[in-house]
Amino acid sequence: MTQEVTGGPVLGILGGTGDQGRGLARRFLLAGRRVILGSRDAERAQSVATSLGYDLDEGARERLRGAGNGTCARDAELVIVAVPYDGHAALLESVRAELAGKIVVDCVNPIGFDARGAYPLAVPEGSACQQAQLLLPESRVVGAFHHVSAVLLLDPNVLTLDTDVLVLGDDREATDRVQALADELPGVRGRYAGRLRNAGQIEALTANLISVNRRYKAHAGVRLTDVHDLPGSARA
Amino acid sequence: MTQEVTGGPVLGILGGTGDQGRGLARRFLLAGRRVILGSRDAERAQSVATSLGYDLDEGARERLRGAGNGTCARDAELVIVAVPYDGHAALLESVRAELAGKIVVDCVNPIGFDARGAYPLAVPEGSACQQAQLLLPESRVVGAFHHVSAVLLLDPNVLTLDTDVLVLGDDREATDRVQALADELPGVRGRYAGRLRNAGQIEALTANLISVNRRYKAHAGVRLTDVHDLPGSARA
Repeated sequence: MTQEVTGGPVLGILGGTGDQGRGLARRFLLAGRRVILGSRDAERAQSVATSLGYDLDEGARERLRGAGNGTCARDAELVIVAVPYDGHAALLESVRAELAGKIVVDCVNPIGFDARGAYPLAVPEGSACQQAQLLLPESRVVGAFHHVSAVLLLDPNVLTLDTDVLVLGDDREATDRVQALADELPGVRGRYAGRLRNAGQIEALTANLISVNRRYKAHAGVRLTDVHDLPGSARA
Repeated sequence: MTQEVTGGPVLGILGGTGDQGRGLARRFLLAGRRVILGSRDAERAQSVATSLGYDLDEGARERLRGAGNGTCARDAELVIVAVPYDGHAALLESVRAELAGKIVVDCVNPIGFDARGAYPLAVPEGSACQQAQLLLPESRVVGAFHHVSAVLLLDPNVLTLDTDVLVLGDDREATDRVQALADELPGVRGRYAGRLRNAGQIEALTANLISVNRRYKAHAGVRLTDVHDLPGSARA
């Protein structure tokens, strides 16, 4: 569906200078979106945005800019949170006012590593998504994009992504919009997968996918079988 | 691969009279396995086995019998645990001796329901699989078959299952054997998906699949993308 979205609501990516953030930014630029990369350090955000733009055409470069996280949260209409878990709560508290009234898409995976591999970290609120919703009572938090491989997102030879994006949330309009957002990426299907209280296991599933990737030397994605578009949905 | 396995190690299914147990029994009988259906009540197990046999050919009927859970655990070489979570610990304690030295496949999903749908129950040991391993220190516990729809397993019009079976465990030989067991079911691919400490989110994912099934009127399964058979595996 590349180029079908020309402009549309501006997408902000908080912590957008990490692999996941840059990868999502790149794909949404290719899909025609306007994107603001956010970082604690506005200069670094600008520099990463410039570097990301080298591989893109002029139109996409013009739709991309870097900014501090506060400016990113303020100027974007729809915001993806792509920071490491240990900075998650502090970041969200710092931009609570800027995110009020907006849909906030959380893709943070609270995962630890030791000699035996990856494992889920205990989150007092149940999940990063639930933590986000508690910290942002005036925003609508939606979980999504937890399992999309940053390696594949950033690989210019990968033209379509063979994965579903599992979308979690308590507000139907918000989850519908984020499903449609996921659908903008070629190959991806956005699928509703439950309420925020069922986000913890989706975040933790990333630890299993890391085990899968190691065993099979893969960049594993997840597809739901027997699930078809609903009548009236963007892709139906 | 129907009929390729003629006999092989006898498969026991503890709590085999429930939907999941009957469904798995039916599919493994169709694949050529010998199966013992276990139940607290040996007479009920016999009766359910007889009823399940009506739809099967004579060869499969001869490979099926019902028994009390203790006899099932004693006589089977490989055992699947398919009881409801609230009877899980008590059942395993009661057959600890019979299961010593064996591979025990746990497919129990600790899930609760309320007005808003399904949600994961907190398990003190982290997961039903980890609880099983702690209660059965002389067995090798493997998690698998958590997401296979009982409705599809029992539907005679469904000839192949469009799903991967995620296999969890700390013993490579045991997980390899359970992957090969899953591979016996037409359409299914057994995939290693991590250690027992990463079983909790796989069990809990069932709550998400219940949400998916409700939203999309589906019997959702899970496929891993970009994952291929390893050299030397049964299906490679």
